[in-house]
Amino acid sequence: MPWPTEIEATSGRFPITPAFRFVWANYHDERLEAATDRALRKWEARTGLQFSRSAAEPGTSISLLIDVGGAGSKIEQPEEDESYVLDVVPTGVRLRAPTVPGAMHGLETLLQLLDGDGEGYFIPAVHIRDQPRFPWRGLLIDVSRHWQPTAVIERNLDAMATVKLNVLHLHLSDDQGFRLESRRHPELQEKGADGRYFTQREMKDLIAYAFARGIRVVPEFDVPGHATSWLASHPELASLPGTYPTERRWGIFDPVLNPTDDRTYALLDDVFGEFAAVFPDPRFHIGGDENNGVQWKENPAIQAFIQEKNLHDNAGLHAFFNRRLSAILAKYGKRMIGWDEIFHPDLPSTTVIQSWRGAEALAETAKAGFSGLLSNGYYIDLIEPAAMHYRNDPVPANTTLTAEQQRRILGGEATMWSEWVSPENIDSRIWPRTAAIAERLWSPRTVVDIPDMYRRLADIGQRLEEAGSLHEKNYLAMLSRLGGDHLDAAQRSALRTFVELVEPVKEYRREDLQPNYDERTPLTGLADCARPDSSDARYFAAQIEALVFAAKSDAIDPMPELDRQLERWIAAARCVAEELPARSPRLRDAAPVAQQLLTAATIGRDALEAWRTGQGQYGGWRTTRLEKLALAAKDGPAAVEIPIIAALRLLVCAASVQPQRATLADAAWRQLVSTLAEPAKP
Amino acid sequence: MPWPTEIEATSGRFPITPAFRFVWANYHDERLEAATDRALRKWEARTGLQFSRSAAEPGTSISLLIDVGGAGSKIEQPEEDESYVLDVVPTGVRLRAPTVPGAMHGLETLLQLLDGDGEGYFIPAVHIRDQPRFPWRGLLIDVSRHWQPTAVIERNLDAMATVKLNVLHLHLSDDQGFRLESRRHPELQEKGADGRYFTQREMKDLIAYAFARGIRVVPEFDVPGHATSWLASHPELASLPGTYPTERRWGIFDPVLNPTDDRTYALLDDVFGEFAAVFPDPRFHIGGDENNGVQWKENPAIQAFIQEKNLHDNAGLHAFFNRRLSAILAKYGKRMIGWDEIFHPDLPSTTVIQSWRGAEALAETAKAGFSGLLSNGYYIDLIEPAAMHYRNDPVPANTTLTAEQQRRILGGEATMWSEWVSPENIDSRIWPRTAAIAERLWSPRTVVDIPDMYRRLADIGQRLEEAGSLHEKNYLAMLSRLGGDHLDAAQRSALRTFVELVEPVKEYRREDLQPNYDERTPLTGLADCARPDSSDARYFAAQIEALVFAAKSDAIDPMPELDRQLERWIAAARCVAEELPARSPRLRDAAPVAQQLLTAATIGRDALEAWRTGQGQYGGWRTTRLEKLALAAKDGPAAVEIPIIAALRLLVCAASVQPQRATLADAAWRQLVSTLAEPAKP
Repeated sequence: MPWPTEIEATSGRFPITPAFRFVWANYHDERLEAATDRALRKWEARTGLQFSRSAAEPGTSISLLIDVGGAGSKIEQPEEDESYVLDVVPTGVRLRAPTVPGAMHGLETLLQLLDGDGEGYFIPAVHIRDQPRFPWRGLLIDVSRHWQPTAVIERNLDAMATVKLNVLHLHLSDDQGFRLESRRHPELQEKGADGRYFTQREMKDLIAYAFARGIRVVPEFDVPGHATSWLASHPELASLPGTYPTERRWGIFDPVLNPTDDRTYALLDDVFGEFAAVFPDPRFHIGGDENNGVQWKENPAIQAFIQEKNLHDNAGLHAFFNRRLSAILAKYGKRMIGWDEIFHPDLPSTTVIQSWRGAEALAETAKAGFSGLLSNGYYIDLIEPAAMHYRNDPVPANTTLTAEQQRRILGGEATMWSEWVSPENIDSRIWPRTAAIAERLWSPRTVVDIPDMYRRLADIGQRLEEAGSLHEKNYLAMLSRLGGDHLDAAQRSALRTFVELVEPVKEYRREDLQPNYDERTPLTGLADCARPDSSDARYFAAQIEALVFAAKSDAIDPMPELDRQLERWIAAARCVAEELPARSPRLRDAAPVAQQLLTAATIGRDALEAWRTGQGQYGGWRTTRLEKLALAAKDGPAAVEIPIIAALRLLVCAASVQPQRATLADAAWRQLVSTLAEPAKP
Repeated sequence: MPWPTEIEATSGRFPITPAFRFVWANYHDERLEAATDRALRKWEARTGLQFSRSAAEPGTSISLLIDVGGAGSKIEQPEEDESYVLDVVPTGVRLRAPTVPGAMHGLETLLQLLDGDGEGYFIPAVHIRDQPRFPWRGLLIDVSRHWQPTAVIERNLDAMATVKLNVLHLHLSDDQGFRLESRRHPELQEKGADGRYFTQREMKDLIAYAFARGIRVVPEFDVPGHATSWLASHPELASLPGTYPTERRWGIFDPVLNPTDDRTYALLDDVFGEFAAVFPDPRFHIGGDENNGVQWKENPAIQAFIQEKNLHDNAGLHAFFNRRLSAILAKYGKRMIGWDEIFHPDLPSTTVIQSWRGAEALAETAKAGFSGLLSNGYYIDLIEPAAMHYRNDPVPANTTLTAEQQRRILGGEATMWSEWVSPENIDSRIWPRTAAIAERLWSPRTVVDIPDMYRRLADIGQRLEEAGSLHEKNYLAMLSRLGGDHLDAAQRSALRTFVELVEPVKEYRREDLQPNYDERTPLTGLADCARPDSSDARYFAAQIEALVFAAKSDAIDPMPELDRQLERWIAAARCVAEELPARSPRLRDAAPVAQQLLTAATIGRDALEAWRTGQGQYGGWRTTRLEKLALAAKDGPAAVEIPIIAALRLLVCAASVQPQRATLADAAWRQLVSTLAEPAKP
C-alpha cells in the first residue's frame, strides 16, 4: 500500500538469508545510502538476520541491485520523477529508478513485500512498474492549536515515507500559537507561543530529516485571519484597537491583520524574508482562510480605504492584501499557496489554491488556470471512516476538466487539525487512515475495492508502527490509564471490548458536546482513547449484511458468530455501565454510553431471534425497537458514538419482514429492507 | 514506592476536584514551578480534570500548600537535604521540605497517593515524614556498547524521578564507542563513535533536564582499559603498536592506554579539562576496571618503567596512572571516582570507589577511609529477579563497620550495561525492577517484605509508563513483530502466554548460547522480547508452595486454578511448538523451548494428579520426571529459560511422597520435600 501502478506476480520467490548482498549501480549518494541502511535495519528487525552493509564485491552473488539514474532535485519539486521498477526473480531483486526518491519508494515497496513461512523469509517473485498518479501527496499537521514537538513530527515523517507521501505541510501559526522562532522578531514566539515552538535549528533538522525521506516541508503562516498569535506581540497591527492574547479555544475569531497599514507589510516582509531562507521549498503557504470580516467592517478607516482603492468590498481588500503578499514572497523566490478564499483572478497564475471547499471549487480553480490541491474530503480530524476518504478522488472519473486542466490538480493533502489531539493520540488520528488517502493520491483511479483496502490497511498499520507511529502503542497505554489501577483482568478486557466498539463523534460535534474544552484540557478521556473506524463494527456490519442479503444458497451461516459477538458486547457493556465507574472515576461518563450499547446489543439479540422465528412481523415490534435504537444512537457528554447501530437498524427491519424474504426476488428484498432501514430525516 | 521512612494513615480523604488550588509558600523557583506543573499534568491526565495553574489567591481555599525552605544546592551534591513532610487531611494537603529536591520527592509521593473510587478522585489522609537512607541512588546507563540516544536518556530520567533516584551515571566511553563530542579532539568521536554520540549541546540539555528532576549526571570515561575507542584515533597511545578499530563485540580486550607515555596524560588532560566544564557535577568517573595487563606485560619498555619507578607490578603501574589522573581531575575541580580496581592506599581520600565486586570489598574500602558505592548485586543486565536485588543491602544489618565507616557508604547504583539491549528494549531491562533497588537505597533497612514489594512493583510499573518508560509499550510491539503478519487471534494469544512465561537466560549465559552476536545483530528475538522476573511464573510458584506446604486446615484449594493454568500453558506451548514456526520464521528457535515447556507443563499436570491420588510413590515415578524436568531446564540457542521448572520440581517431589504428608509434622514435611527437590549439584 499504496497499490502499484502495474503489478504482475510471477512464479517463485527470492529467499532472504544472511548471505544477502546489495550493490548500488550507476549513481548513489548519502541519501540513498542512509535509505538503504534504514531499509536493511527494518528487515533485520523483522527477520533477526544480520546483513552486510558493504556493497557486494566481485565474485559474490548480488541479492539486490539498486540501479539509480541520479540524485533527483536538490530541493524536491512537484516535478520530481518518483517512478521505479522492481523485478523480483528467484535469483535476486533488481530495483531501477531514475532518481533517489524513486529508489526510496521502491525500497518501501520491497519492505512491504517481505514475507515468511515455514521455509524462511522471502520476497515473492513479482514485476512492478510504479509511479504516482499525483505529484503532491501531503499531510498537514497543525502544530498551532495543540503543540506537537519534534518527536511527533519525526515519527510521522517516517510513517509518511512508508506510504510514499511526499509533502509535510506544517501549519505553523494560528490564533493559538506562533510556532517558529523568528530571530528578527523574537517577540512573535516570546508572546505568541507559551515557550512551545521550533527553533530555526530544529526546523532545519526537521527539513533535513524529511528530505532524507523524500519529503518536502511546506510551511504555512496563516494571515490575515487566524493570526491572533501575531497580534499577541503586535496589537497595533490588528484591524481594531485592543489587546490580543493568544486564543485557548477553537473557532473563527474576529481579530485580523490590518491590510491598510504599511507596518503590516513591513513585518510580514521581515518575517517571511527570514523564514524564506529557513525553508528550501519554493512554495510558501499563507493560509488566508476564514477571515470573518467583522473587524474590517467595524473599522471606518478600513472601509474608507476599500472605497478609495476601489476594492469594492472585504473580498477585494483580501485580494489586495494577497497581491502584496505574493509580491513579497516573489521577492524571496517563493510562490504563494493558500486556501480557497485567496482565489482571485488578479493573483499570479503561479499561485496554488488548496481547497477545503471541495472538488468542484478545485475544478473551478483549474479552469481559471491555477494549480490546486484537494483537502476537502481528507479532513482526518473529522473522524470519518477511511472508506469515505478513499472514495474521494481529486479528479473523479466524471470530471469535466480537459487533460491540461487536470494536470493543474497537483494532488491533495490529509489535514490533521489539532483541536482535539495531543502528542499522545495524534498518531491514532492520522494512522492508519491516512494510508488510504496516500493510496488514493498514488494509485490508479481504478483501484477502488474497499474491502481489499481495509484488509491491506490492517497490514500497513503494523508496518507504520514499526516505522515509528504510536497509533497502537499509545492507544493501549491510554486504555490502561483510563481503566485506572483497580480493574481486574476481566474488567480490563471488558473495557477494551467496549472502547474498540465506540468511535469519537464525527465532524465538529464534539465542540457542541464538550463545550468547555480548551487547549489545556487533558485529552485522556473515552473520546480521546477511542479510535476512528472501528474494525469490530465494520466486521459486524458486513456480517449483518451477509445474513440479511445473502443469496439464498449461501452456505456459511453467520448467525452463531453474530450471537456470540452480541453476547460478548452485552457482557462488556454491562460491566462498563455497572462496575467500572466505581473503580475508575475517569469512566463515569462512559457508563451512559455503555448503557446505550447494552440496549442496542440486546435489541440485536432479540432481532436475531426474530429473524430466526419470524416473530418480528407482529404489532409495533419494529417501531418500538427502532425508537429505542434511535435513543441509543444519541450522543452525549462522552462524545463518542456506537457505530454498530446502523447495522442493527438494518437487522431489525429485515427481521420485521423476514417472512416475505422467501417470496421476493433478491433485488426487491434488498430494496424493501433498505428503505425500511433508512434513518428518518432529522 | 520507595516506601517512606515514616507513614501513618489517618482518617478520611481529601477529594480532588476542579476547584483544586495550590500555593507556594516561603520559597519557589523555576525548577519547583516546572515540577509542580509536571505533577499537575500527570494528575490531569489521570483524572481528566483541569487544574488552575495560578497559585491560589486570597479568599480561595488552598488544596495544596507547598512550603519550601530554599533552592537546595545549585549543583546537586550528595549532601543535599532531600527530606520532606507530607500531611494530607480532609481539607487539604501540606507539603513541607527544606529544599526544592525534597519538595519534588514529596510531589512524586503525592502522585502515587492519588486514588479513585465511586465517589471520585482523592488522596487518602496520611502523615508522611520521609528522607533517603543513602544520599547516592543511581542508575548507570552504558551508551557505549549499544548506543542510546537522547530520547532514551530523557524518558529514563523521568522514570528515575518517579522512584526518587538522584544520580544518572553515563558510561560514555568503552571499547565499542566514544560517545561525547570533544571539540578539542574531534577525532575521538569521529573515529570512535560511528556518528553516534552526544554533542556537547545535547549533553548540556540532558544535564539541565536531569537537574530539573533533582538528578545529578556523573560522566564516566573508562581508562586505561576498556578504551579501544580512544585508540581508534590515537593508536600511538596504546601499550603495543598496532591499529585499533572500535570493537563490535563484548568482552575484556587487551588494548590499554600506555601509562608510561606523557602523550597519554596530555590527551587526558585536554579532554578531561574540556569535559570538566560540560559536567557541573564535582565527581568524574574514570572507570579503571578490567585491565587484563596483557599489553603491559608484553611491552618491555613498560616493564622497565615499572622497575625504574619502583612500581612493583602492573597494579602499581595502574595506581601510578590513577594518581596522575587524580591530579589532572583535581586541577579541574573534580574528585575521582572509579571501580574497585582503582582502590589503592596512595589515592587521595576524596576518591570514591564503586564496587562491582561486592559488599565485602566495599566494606574494606570504607575501613580504609574511602567513600564507596555498591553496584554488585544491582547488575540489572543480568536479568535476575527484583527480589534478589531487593535483598542486597549496601550496609547489611550484620555489618562490622563503625557508624563513621557506614557513613562512607554513600549508596549504590543499578547498572544497565548494554551488551544485550537496544533503545527498543532497554526500558524493560531497567523497569520496573530498578524501582526495587531505588526502594532499597531510599527506604529503611527494615522494609524487606518481598510479596509486598512485588505487589507495589506492579503498581509503580504503570506510573513509570505514564512517566515515559516504554517497558510495556515496546514489549507489546516487539511481541507483535515477533509473531509476524500471519497469526490469528488465538495464535497471538498463545504466543503472548508463552513469552510471558519465559525469561532471558541469567548472568552471562547468553554470550555462550549466542556466541555470534555483535553490536549490529538485531535484538528483536525471543530473548530480547521476553522480560525478567515473569510474574506468571512467580504467581504459579507461590500457588504450588501454597498447595504443597499449606497448613492442613487451609480452606482455599489452589488445585483447580493450577489445573487451568497448566492446561493453558500446555495449549500455548503446543501452538508455539507446532503452528507458529511455519507462520513466523523469527519463531523457529522458540519451538524447542515451547516443546520443553510442553514437557514440563505436562509433567506438572501428571504431578497434580499424582498429588491427588498418591500414585507418585511407586517405582521410578519421581526420578523419571525429575530427569525430564532437568532436560526441559536446559537452555539452548533461543537463550531463554522456563522459570516454573523449580516449582514443578517441588511439586513432583511432594507428589512422590504425598502419602507421608498425613504422618509428618509441618516442619518435617517441609524438610523432606525441600531436600528431595534440591537440584543436583552440577
